[in-house]
Amino acid sequence: MTAERASVDLENWTCPVPLRDSPTVLLGHGAGGRLSSDLVEHLFVPAFGGDAKALGDAAVVAVGATRIAMTTDSFVVRPRWFPGGNIGALAVNGTVNDLAMVGAQPLYLTAGFILEEGLEVEELGRLSTALGEAARQAGVRVVAGDTKVVDHGHGDGLYVNTTGVGVVPDGVDIGPVNARPGDAVVLSGPIGQHGVAVLSVREGLEFGTEILSDCQPLHGLVGDLLAAGVDVHTLRDPTRGGVAATLNEIAASSGVGVEIEERLLPVPDDVRAACGFLGLDPLVVANEGKLVAFVPAEQADLAVATLRANPRGVGAVRIGSVTQEHPGVVVARTGIGGSRVVDLPLGEQLPRIC
Amino acid sequence: MTAERASVDLENWTCPVPLRDSPTVLLGHGAGGRLSSDLVEHLFVPAFGGDAKALGDAAVVAVGATRIAMTTDSFVVRPRWFPGGNIGALAVNGTVNDLAMVGAQPLYLTAGFILEEGLEVEELGRLSTALGEAARQAGVRVVAGDTKVVDHGHGDGLYVNTTGVGVVPDGVDIGPVNARPGDAVVLSGPIGQHGVAVLSVREGLEFGTEILSDCQPLHGLVGDLLAAGVDVHTLRDPTRGGVAATLNEIAASSGVGVEIEERLLPVPDDVRAACGFLGLDPLVVANEGKLVAFVPAEQADLAVATLRANPRGVGAVRIGSVTQEHPGVVVARTGIGGSRVVDLPLGEQLPRIC
Repeated sequence: MTAERASVDLENWTCPVPLRDSPTVLLGHGAGGRLSSDLVEHLFVPAFGGDAKALGDAAVVAVGATRIAMTTDSFVVRPRWFPGGNIGALAVNGTVNDLAMVGAQPLYLTAGFILEEGLEVEELGRLSTALGEAARQAGVRVVAGDTKVVDHGHGDGLYVNTTGVGVVPDGVDIGPVNARPGDAVVLSGPIGQHGVAVLSVREGLEFGTEILSDCQPLHGLVGDLLAAGVDVHTLRDPTRGGVAATLNEIAASSGVGVEIEERLLPVPDDVRAACGFLGLDPLVVANEGKLVAFVPAEQADLAVATLRANPRGVGAVRIGSVTQEHPGVVVARTGIGGSRVVDLPLGEQLPRIC
Repeated sequence: MTAERASVDLENWTCPVPLRDSPTVLLGHGAGGRLSSDLVEHLFVPAFGGDAKALGDAAVVAVGATRIAMTTDSFVVRPRWFPGGNIGALAVNGTVNDLAMVGAQPLYLTAGFILEEGLEVEELGRLSTALGEAARQAGVRVVAGDTKVVDHGHGDGLYVNTTGVGVVPDGVDIGPVNARPGDAVVLSGPIGQHGVAVLSVREGLEFGTEILSDCQPLHGLVGDLLAAGVDVHTLRDPTRGGVAATLNEIAASSGVGVEIEERLLPVPDDVRAACGFLGLDPLVVANEGKLVAFVPAEQADLAVATLRANPRGVGAVRIGSVTQEHPGVVVARTGIGGSRVVDLPLGEQLPRIC
């Protein structure tokens, strides 16, 4: 959603102001936009202590002399199987990627299932196998699990939480507060594929497309950047809320402005067509195999070249830069010399996308 | 459920044999009994690799030079508020206790919420506050979180996953395979309170009782045992499936027999009365603040005295011992000189008890 372009009301849209003051939980509270931020800032942080940043990202904490990263994610994507992926593979890659975004080497995962009575055991087997296979591909071990079953009508087949632990190498300090004026903003490849792939098979929204989810692990790309000597300041994988939410969160956390060139954004033609059909801005559509990196401007070319040398980052491009002007605000320069504010999505454009 | 005493069909009970071969997920698959074991052994372990034991308990793994314990648990208890506790406090203590059962000092938790559209934000606030307060009381930090929202009719207000990390002190080796013939079996206090407390307020089952859940953290008790020099072999908190499931799992994992004296079991009068009313064996009812410890016989008195010196273990008693006879089987000696086999519960006596 942007200031210039109204999004189409797909589901449950109501006026923004009452939405933010709702006495009950709305789908938008889980969408990674302003409503989610409100919940974290005004409800969870006061309840749990700590600070909002620590609750939003993988946390880096000490055990003995080692720094570990911890992150948790529940997956409720609907449908469970979609072009290019499934909830099992997504649960591995989503959590592995959150660890990678603080520069950690992912090591261990836990898997907590909430099954709805009546789920086919055969499908549970296939999804567990997909989860196990994704873990092997990502080089992580599933070390602990839990299964709860809820009565029919109180779930949706299968929800799964994965929580991950990784080790943060000495000297690595990557975080959302570290973006600096002058940094280049690099994106590892085309955007919008995961969200459009899921929507293309969603009940009531089916439309023909060949787009596959980009669901993949990203810690290899991060390892390559670090090995190449890139002084990575900030990383984020633009999942719920898309690139728009990611850039807004980093701008706010680091107290900087971000400017991107709209013409440089890698939006595949079929994604653009589907977004036009659905009334979505590709900037707010979820990705599950892309990262945004903030690096010193003089290392931008090195970062892009390093990412492109890895099959998971062949589409890497520089899309913008960090400015000390308009702190907390993301601006997109449009093709014809104008500009628009890229706002943090309010709530729910794409419910249950991950 | 025992060999001598049939349990009353409370909800959804069907014939045991078809239950075990069901093509769909049943409530019993989440109950901590045979159906749960089947799922772990025959589905999750082949899918994820590793071994069944590692998936059932807190896993102990290495990060750098440090051994950490990891465990995950999702909480779906119904209702969310019950005498003596709530789902927030339960989510903290359940996970803290799983860490404690391998001798770990709990340090960090993550909290992953799956909210149903329509939940009162005010109740979410109260439950989060309860979770945060329980974490402070247990001395652990909630370091990362996640919130997903599912549409109305696909959840039940609030489910929460907590995953915990703790440090295992050097030299500590506590696990389900370590019980040995000659060990004493010590229980830290009266049983059956959590399950009965939850059932006492469950929709359709309300009955008058003053019984409170025993929900509490147990790592202090474990620390006391270790500090007293008790060579603890095996620990387990008897949650789903109760003491019956716990003793059966340990007997199977360690390849030993377990004998308990029925008259030594601390069952409060009101719990016994409620279990009689409901047709339940107190041995299969869930606890959330008790532990079973297997220790060398010559240290049994020291273990009991150490537990009793802590307010969380004042009701500690020795309930039995380990034998090399009937490996894998748990036997209860009855008051009149007879004995009965204490079987692993098959499936679901008490759905959604945690």
